[in-house]
Amino acid sequence: MGGDGAPEIVVAGLALAAERHPSARFLLFGDETRLGQLLRRYRRAAALCAVRHTPEAIAGDMKPTAALRLRRASMRLAIDAVAGGEAAGVVSAGNTGALLALAKIVIKTLPGIDRPAMAAIGPSERGDVVMLDLGANVACDARNLVEFAVMGDVFARTVLGLTGPTIGLLNVGSEEMKGDERVRQAADVLRESYLAPQFHGFVEGHDIAAGTTDVIVTDGFTGNVALKTFEGTGKLVRGLLRQVFSSSWSARLGYLLARPGLDRLREWMDPRRYNGAVMLGLSGVVVKSHGGTDAAGFAHAVDVAMDMVEHRFNDRMREGLSRIMVPQPGMGPADGPRNGHGPRLAAAR
Amino acid sequence: MGGDGAPEIVVAGLALAAERHPSARFLLFGDETRLGQLLRRYRRAAALCAVRHTPEAIAGDMKPTAALRLRRASMRLAIDAVAGGEAAGVVSAGNTGALLALAKIVIKTLPGIDRPAMAAIGPSERGDVVMLDLGANVACDARNLVEFAVMGDVFARTVLGLTGPTIGLLNVGSEEMKGDERVRQAADVLRESYLAPQFHGFVEGHDIAAGTTDVIVTDGFTGNVALKTFEGTGKLVRGLLRQVFSSSWSARLGYLLARPGLDRLREWMDPRRYNGAVMLGLSGVVVKSHGGTDAAGFAHAVDVAMDMVEHRFNDRMREGLSRIMVPQPGMGPADGPRNGHGPRLAAAR
Repeated sequence: MGGDGAPEIVVAGLALAAERHPSARFLLFGDETRLGQLLRRYRRAAALCAVRHTPEAIAGDMKPTAALRLRRASMRLAIDAVAGGEAAGVVSAGNTGALLALAKIVIKTLPGIDRPAMAAIGPSERGDVVMLDLGANVACDARNLVEFAVMGDVFARTVLGLTGPTIGLLNVGSEEMKGDERVRQAADVLRESYLAPQFHGFVEGHDIAAGTTDVIVTDGFTGNVALKTFEGTGKLVRGLLRQVFSSSWSARLGYLLARPGLDRLREWMDPRRYNGAVMLGLSGVVVKSHGGTDAAGFAHAVDVAMDMVEHRFNDRMREGLSRIMVPQPGMGPADGPRNGHGPRLAAAR
Repeated sequence: MGGDGAPEIVVAGLALAAERHPSARFLLFGDETRLGQLLRRYRRAAALCAVRHTPEAIAGDMKPTAALRLRRASMRLAIDAVAGGEAAGVVSAGNTGALLALAKIVIKTLPGIDRPAMAAIGPSERGDVVMLDLGANVACDARNLVEFAVMGDVFARTVLGLTGPTIGLLNVGSEEMKGDERVRQAADVLRESYLAPQFHGFVEGHDIAAGTTDVIVTDGFTGNVALKTFEGTGKLVRGLLRQVFSSSWSARLGYLLARPGLDRLREWMDPRRYNGAVMLGLSGVVVKSHGGTDAAGFAHAVDVAMDMVEHRFNDRMREGLSRIMVPQPGMGPADGPRNGHGPRLAAAR
């Protein structure tokens, strides 16, 4: 029931996705009457769907604290289905803050994970790039950054199908002494970990569009700003090009002549192709679709969830986590191991 | 002597700038013989220049700690001239880290300023935008952010000629409860300050390209990443468009037909027009030119320095600082004023 075009867009998108995943089964949470009417348009998809009536829905502008109290809202019941093991994952186009808060509270965190992170895929000069965290955690320590690298690695393997994705840690410069204690300590841990062969070191803002690494790890504050800066700049340039090509008759003709290439460029930058931000680090798959997307975009978000489920994302996460030593909170290099003990293994907790 | 094309580009750029600022006088620090030869090409500029021979130069890859020891390097002596009051400002295309470190140590900080910040101007949908800090301070507290707002306001008035520039604080969302304590506290102070009528509140990454506010305030880590993301995305799109327009004969013809508009767009995005990052908060004007720029770009960096000197940037900074109450380090709203004293006035320190 969430997003600008719900529930029409959601059902239409689900129908598209259902064609591509005929072995999947879907639970739809929302207004029974409206969902039933919509499903009549998509016979094949309807056969794969079960509708669960929910009397409430979380509004787009509702604060997370208020959303947490609506225990019979469609988003809440869908998340409950994941927490209870009835569903493998949830896809929502609704209120992001509410989805983040509900998922964190209702679905358990994976053993060894301090804080879940939000990840998404975007285009770059050298292919698709995974970036995280995109805003789930505004403040992060070295431990969180290391865990994000583990999650990003598994996500790039699972959803992009890469065998040894390269990983970069976002910083203000590429030299080892750059940045703050947090990023330097996380880099030290990664250089000593099983991810060392894939760890590229520090990357900078321009490396996002350049695609220098397959995975870009950063804290939620910086990641959120960088993602929105990237999207905003792309949008600005698209708008300016539209102006240029409608500024005169000869420019319009020029557009027609260059159209095949320009259309490919537009398609390549199409935000719908990248729809579906993922919450990683939970015992279940949680995908957030953009609220303003269309059916094709929503279907893509379902594809992402299906990829994660089919490729056993969380099993692979557990494997990765058991292989890495994460720095403990507050343990700067100056502190050193206390009482003669080194940092504990994440898997031992 | 710094930058990819030094000293040729620097002298050629200075000559361009000297034509526009005939009442200025310039001190050139570097190799006397080479500078003398180059100046012979530019008679009018040469009449405004005095050359100071320096036997050393700071290499582009030299660490700031090593650069600090070269007391007779061209960059060092130019900064000494500002600190000693002989020059009103310095423009350099050399090693950024060294320039930042030397300027901070040799030139005094303005009274009331905790930490200087790096600012630059960039294009947006609604006109030029000032952003700071761009990397001088990787960690900032609320006090620093408030001071950056004061500096950004004066800079936008001085260099962009705006009368009441709007100011935004970069955050992960625009609602008041978003972000961390740091940005929320800085926003609280700004809402109560003389800048309140200009303070727009929180802005997000996409507001940089949209030009939602004239000034964007953020910490040096986020600002550096956002600036480089913005530049990198622009560069990616320029490269892709070049590919599109050379992909076929009809696309080439299309380019020719749309050329006037496309050329205007390229000119508008031209990084040379925005060359010259400024270090604010020091008792002297310090401008960093991009190391890879050409003469026109270097001349623009000189223009920025001249604007700041001619419009008495630092006098106006002192006025602004005397009017604002800045939060003291560690004074979160939960702490409250200690010993019955409120936060001290910046001007009282």
